[in-house]
Amino acid sequence: MKITGDMLIGAKSVRGRETTFYAVNPADGKKMEPAFGGGGEAEVREACELAWAAFDSYRETSLEARATFLETVAQKIMDLGDPLVERASAESGLPRARIEGERGRTVGQLRLFAGVVREGGWIEARIDPALPDRKPLPRPDQRQRHIPLGPVAVFGASNFPLAFSVAGGDTASALAAGCPVIVKAHSAHPGTSELVGRAVQAAVAECGLPEGVFSMVFGAGNSVGTALVSDWRIKAVGFTGSRRGGMALVSVAAARREPIPVYAEMSSINPVFLLPSALSSRAEALGKGYVASLNLGAGQFCTNPGIVLALDGPDLDRFLETAKAEVGNSAASTMLTPGIFAAYDEGVRKLSGNSKVRLLARGQACSGPNQCQTAVFETDAASFLSETDLQEEVFGASSLVIRCPDLETVRTVAEHLEGQLTATVQADESDLDAARMLLPVLERKAGRVLFNGWPTGVDVSHAMVHGGPFPSTADGRSTSVGTLAIRRFLRPVCYQDVPAGLLPEALKDGNPLKLWRRIGGEMGRD
Amino acid sequence: MKITGDMLIGAKSVRGRETTFYAVNPADGKKMEPAFGGGGEAEVREACELAWAAFDSYRETSLEARATFLETVAQKIMDLGDPLVERASAESGLPRARIEGERGRTVGQLRLFAGVVREGGWIEARIDPALPDRKPLPRPDQRQRHIPLGPVAVFGASNFPLAFSVAGGDTASALAAGCPVIVKAHSAHPGTSELVGRAVQAAVAECGLPEGVFSMVFGAGNSVGTALVSDWRIKAVGFTGSRRGGMALVSVAAARREPIPVYAEMSSINPVFLLPSALSSRAEALGKGYVASLNLGAGQFCTNPGIVLALDGPDLDRFLETAKAEVGNSAASTMLTPGIFAAYDEGVRKLSGNSKVRLLARGQACSGPNQCQTAVFETDAASFLSETDLQEEVFGASSLVIRCPDLETVRTVAEHLEGQLTATVQADESDLDAARMLLPVLERKAGRVLFNGWPTGVDVSHAMVHGGPFPSTADGRSTSVGTLAIRRFLRPVCYQDVPAGLLPEALKDGNPLKLWRRIGGEMGRD
Repeated sequence: MKITGDMLIGAKSVRGRETTFYAVNPADGKKMEPAFGGGGEAEVREACELAWAAFDSYRETSLEARATFLETVAQKIMDLGDPLVERASAESGLPRARIEGERGRTVGQLRLFAGVVREGGWIEARIDPALPDRKPLPRPDQRQRHIPLGPVAVFGASNFPLAFSVAGGDTASALAAGCPVIVKAHSAHPGTSELVGRAVQAAVAECGLPEGVFSMVFGAGNSVGTALVSDWRIKAVGFTGSRRGGMALVSVAAARREPIPVYAEMSSINPVFLLPSALSSRAEALGKGYVASLNLGAGQFCTNPGIVLALDGPDLDRFLETAKAEVGNSAASTMLTPGIFAAYDEGVRKLSGNSKVRLLARGQACSGPNQCQTAVFETDAASFLSETDLQEEVFGASSLVIRCPDLETVRTVAEHLEGQLTATVQADESDLDAARMLLPVLERKAGRVLFNGWPTGVDVSHAMVHGGPFPSTADGRSTSVGTLAIRRFLRPVCYQDVPAGLLPEALKDGNPLKLWRRIGGEMGRD
Repeated sequence: MKITGDMLIGAKSVRGRETTFYAVNPADGKKMEPAFGGGGEAEVREACELAWAAFDSYRETSLEARATFLETVAQKIMDLGDPLVERASAESGLPRARIEGERGRTVGQLRLFAGVVREGGWIEARIDPALPDRKPLPRPDQRQRHIPLGPVAVFGASNFPLAFSVAGGDTASALAAGCPVIVKAHSAHPGTSELVGRAVQAAVAECGLPEGVFSMVFGAGNSVGTALVSDWRIKAVGFTGSRRGGMALVSVAAARREPIPVYAEMSSINPVFLLPSALSSRAEALGKGYVASLNLGAGQFCTNPGIVLALDGPDLDRFLETAKAEVGNSAASTMLTPGIFAAYDEGVRKLSGNSKVRLLARGQACSGPNQCQTAVFETDAASFLSETDLQEEVFGASSLVIRCPDLETVRTVAEHLEGQLTATVQADESDLDAARMLLPVLERKAGRVLFNGWPTGVDVSHAMVHGGPFPSTADGRSTSVGTLAIRRFLRPVCYQDVPAGLLPEALKDGNPLKLWRRIGGEMGRD
């Protein structure tokens, strides 16, 4: 499939006339062909009109039809073959194997949501049968289902050009919920975006769905992005990126005549707690595991371990010795974009210049442009508590180890943290009392609490939560990874005494869809 | 129990020193004893500190203990006996029978949530067992439950001094979720608030819970209310009242360092659609039912039928003739407060002065102060579509009938409406095609769609939705009535490879709480 540089508005290819831009290969800093055209308000409006026109029909597709559509998208992405892998790798600087793995994750996630759609639990059907003899008033027949919110704007993320981009988690969960999607493609991987966008577009056509189910636009965040989030037809927003970018969208959404929810996943430093017994028994293994997690994807993961807390002492010194050696052996690796590299470089420079922070180790020297040279710093708890800046995320392989005098201080630092995507505890059997003391704090601070692992793996499962209290996300009541993500795009509707012939399938007597439903509050599959 | 005029901060009675105010009996406009003391930031801070201190312990109470607590609150409210009914009736102008019914609803709702807590479905436990042999990477053990958000600020509503006030739906659902509650009592019924507040306070003590589980403050919205919503310990807000009041809280919540969700139920005109065949076969019965619904509680219901849409013609004329007669026979009834009466009077005056609107009928003359004299107006679809003002809620018994030339125009007007709590359809068998055409619009616009009834009854059930798209609420993804309301105060947390000894009961192997859980995505009670 040829990359044209066009936007996809429903079934059409549309050339953006407002701006011209190119992808840049961060490994050599060079422009890649072809030129892409960024659009403006007119194209956004057209995409929104098409999405709105598609909504009532798409949201009532059968569970089977919608599931098949998601599976078709997955297949069409696989059918793109090697050119997709090559283009994504060139645009992102990420190695081929990583892109192949991410492609597997992306299509796996679409197929998982197909299964979720078929099972239908997300509809959360409830029926309270009429009680005509109830006193003082009869009870009407009441039935509840969840319906999709409406067209969703999805902003592709730079760091997962497939899994959190055009057909990534936000798009998969919104389409699964029954919402048309308009993607604002990320300018860091426009070719990858177009290829995947064309796969979705082809799936829409093949499945006989209205063309407005999917569109994809190129353009600047503060023009095309703002126009998209401002359009009255858009009813929710999915975003993964910086805190500044996320909060800008939150402001636009709140200023609308009808404010809408923004699911922005923004910023997290993912604390790791090394409890004393674990640190004593496996300081070296922990040091190795830590640096491996830190280096994954040049540190460009939302769940990158940005701070480590441990009791000061010889066990921590052993951990740091190993970490230093591992960092010293870490090859520099290309970052996603020159902009991300510049921000990383600036963040590391700021930490290096902070008198309360000491540089422990840096990775091997860079051999090309835009390379991340792993950095590990240390400080003490008192300094960390007094310097708000030290909580700021440095996106990339940079991490800060905090020496704490005692467990009570560890807890105090934990309480001092802002909301996080993850909190990790390294604990042996005899650390369980300390872990028990920490756990209530970590539950309040993070969306995922994990033991004896590293936070950088985010499984796409039913129990996953990739979300958390502000500022890790703009809405801590939800997740952007895993099957619960479908709920972000739904709202409940009650049908009272609605004639049988008008009831949606999910709420009909006899349970034709064989759903799990609550009848009079009792869960069952009637 | 004596009414003292004090606030309840944890286990203490605290005299507010910032302001002094009295309840006013709207039936005679006279002040009622005793004087109440409004508090300030210091008392708000103290209540928040106590709530925060109580949170970690209260949220881990057993399901049985929490359910018993809710039932104890219900019993203590009943134990207040007649003095509660008398005070609430005097402070609100609502008749005794209505207050008794509302008390039944209030304690019934607390008991319903006790049952919900015991059943435990709201935890939404999910377990994805480890797959150590999965390729390319092993899957860790992942478990998910929902935990409460934190202390919740509840703003009592004026129009249900029991059911949407101190121990009303917001408080019941927040306590059920495991959130401590701080109520900002409504100044229209402070004596009722104190009585009920003391019942809750006594239940907290009797159940051996930390005192901070419940506090209640008096004071002005823009000082005490703002201080409450601004406090970092408050993690969500429940509100029922005006659009202006709700949006003010939304702004305060959004401006916090950590923004929090505001569940504000604000404004709805609850369209009623009279379809042709129903109108033809039962114009008179519909006219009577309409005015009865309009007059309920002097029209001071969030679900009051504020607009009616029907095809112009002789059937509509018959409907209006009956409605006119019924309105003419409607006795004036006392409104909740002088302020609400003044706003109603102003709203009716504005409609009367609109040249595109015609006054059809008014109720009987007033016999005392602050009385609502039912008003029904008519206009045509073209005028309604051109005048945005006509969509504004007039709180009280005021309603506007819109003559439409055809069904397509009915649909156009429906599409033109803002978000609503309810949409009502009167339809006979031969109206079903017309109803089918309207239904997708109504689902998008409203939280509850009902047929052949009136919107003013809001059942407290499992399937109820009392919520809807903006501006009917600030967050259309939820309900403030019915058991699904518990979800507003919860968020998901994932536990990855957490040692068995640290897992919450709900997620343990062997399912000790006998919950419905999803294991590997499959619903069951293992």
